[in-house]
Amino acid sequence: MEVAILGCYAATPTTSHRPTSQVLSIGNHLFLIDCGEGTQTQLRRQKIKFSRIKHIFISHLHGDHFYGLIGLIATFGLLDRKTPLHIYGPKGIKEIITLQLKLSKSWTGFPLYFHELEQKTPEIIFQDDKVSVETIPLDHRVYTNGFLFKEALGDRKLLIDKVDEYQIDVAYYKSIKKGKDVPDNNGNLIANKLLTAPPPPPKSYAFCSDTAFKPELATQLKNTSVLYHEATFLERHKHLCEKTKHTTAKQAATLAKMAAVKKLILGHYSTRYGSIEVFKQEAEQVFPEVLLAEDGKKFKFD
Amino acid sequence: MEVAILGCYAATPTTSHRPTSQVLSIGNHLFLIDCGEGTQTQLRRQKIKFSRIKHIFISHLHGDHFYGLIGLIATFGLLDRKTPLHIYGPKGIKEIITLQLKLSKSWTGFPLYFHELEQKTPEIIFQDDKVSVETIPLDHRVYTNGFLFKEALGDRKLLIDKVDEYQIDVAYYKSIKKGKDVPDNNGNLIANKLLTAPPPPPKSYAFCSDTAFKPELATQLKNTSVLYHEATFLERHKHLCEKTKHTTAKQAATLAKMAAVKKLILGHYSTRYGSIEVFKQEAEQVFPEVLLAEDGKKFKFD
Repeated sequence: MEVAILGCYAATPTTSHRPTSQVLSIGNHLFLIDCGEGTQTQLRRQKIKFSRIKHIFISHLHGDHFYGLIGLIATFGLLDRKTPLHIYGPKGIKEIITLQLKLSKSWTGFPLYFHELEQKTPEIIFQDDKVSVETIPLDHRVYTNGFLFKEALGDRKLLIDKVDEYQIDVAYYKSIKKGKDVPDNNGNLIANKLLTAPPPPPKSYAFCSDTAFKPELATQLKNTSVLYHEATFLERHKHLCEKTKHTTAKQAATLAKMAAVKKLILGHYSTRYGSIEVFKQEAEQVFPEVLLAEDGKKFKFD
Repeated sequence: MEVAILGCYAATPTTSHRPTSQVLSIGNHLFLIDCGEGTQTQLRRQKIKFSRIKHIFISHLHGDHFYGLIGLIATFGLLDRKTPLHIYGPKGIKEIITLQLKLSKSWTGFPLYFHELEQKTPEIIFQDDKVSVETIPLDHRVYTNGFLFKEALGDRKLLIDKVDEYQIDVAYYKSIKKGKDVPDNNGNLIANKLLTAPPPPPKSYAFCSDTAFKPELATQLKNTSVLYHEATFLERHKHLCEKTKHTTAKQAATLAKMAAVKKLILGHYSTRYGSIEVFKQEAEQVFPEVLLAEDGKKFKFD
């Protein structure tokens, strides 16, 4: 599991700060999460192959989270993409994109599917045999979802010494990995647990931006491997969080602790602070495993 | 008169090529012409004060000419702008912008005026005592206008030796500059031409992008000081011009010659050619005064 941060600052793009966008690599997928202005240029800079992006998740319809989407779709079209593209985002996103495609007489040459979200409780919006994605309803000034990406439980690990010892035919290996009990050469049923070890624990990634501090998320986020959570402000500007429905670094860390996640990545920083190190310092008072998102940075989780 | 090229390449933004946008400084105005993705970052890079931009002209609704507009408007809002903003562009632009502002619940705190264009013959769309702007109907795949910016004829130049010689009271100076005949101290009417020199010839700037070669523009563009004209392709790709409604460097130069403009700036290059010098070489075969637009370049015309 790997996440590439394309942009992680709040509000407007500047020469040194890019709005929210990131690419999560999980279960053979590249998922694009949010798509602020300039995302397509950042994808090129990080040499991420456009055609591998088949699913885009948009948290909410504030510009710093989706103004780069129409340009990315148009570029896919110009590059003669044929691969289908799925867009998950708040109701309204389809109208915004299709209106612009219509007025530019530039229909895409690839299938474009919109999955518009309206529900205020978690729902599974994507699932295959490798990974599932569910919404995390957030508390912001407009309808907003975070997204929880979970690897599916993998196959059980075949213990090759044991299958030799019990004289199991190679034809049964696939069934054994799937957890089945299988017969030995004499027709005796051998319990699966004698032949396998449990699969590695599945990893998970939660993206929570933008939102006011929402401690009740701890239940849904329980034991998540990595939580990316917005930390727009520090505690000394907590009053701005209340007004704008954002979170402080300390509040993000509090949620990380409550949910017992393994790692916390902070991002969506206000540019009012000279350095982003202050967010880490504040969060570490509550929760030790804090990482700082930075534009262009990649995190790998083994 | 000065023009700052923010971006001058066709199609999609990349790490090294920016889509169309430029700022024309004429008659005390800063006019923003087209607004591809990333324009607000380019404005910051060139240290152009956002608040001085009061009029934005959009040629057509292809993404590489306007996808940066919604982000720029949103940023103006976040920066607490109060100054009115006027947007001139094809019918539909108002719906695109207002739909996005509505869905993000982010109405601007400044007056936003849309001047939607539908006419297929030239029309004056802005005029004050310093400058006028008229549309240049172009021939592209969607409804497209270029824009012709013309300085108004300035005041006549007061010849201070002459007004002294004819003993004209200082109270008449303003009238003299406006071309009036005025009395001397003895009440004799003195012809204006004895007291003044003609004003400097007014400068003009024509922006023509995107368009197929349209030689009949020569009449409207006659004697324009500076013509910015798209040159997406070279002659060897003329067949692509016909299909996509673009112009070759040679065709742009032919129009410049026919219209007897003083300078031609080429831009909107396809990125298929290794160097943009080839556009200049081709155009100079027809017209000598060729300049090449480049992202970040400024041209000053005295």
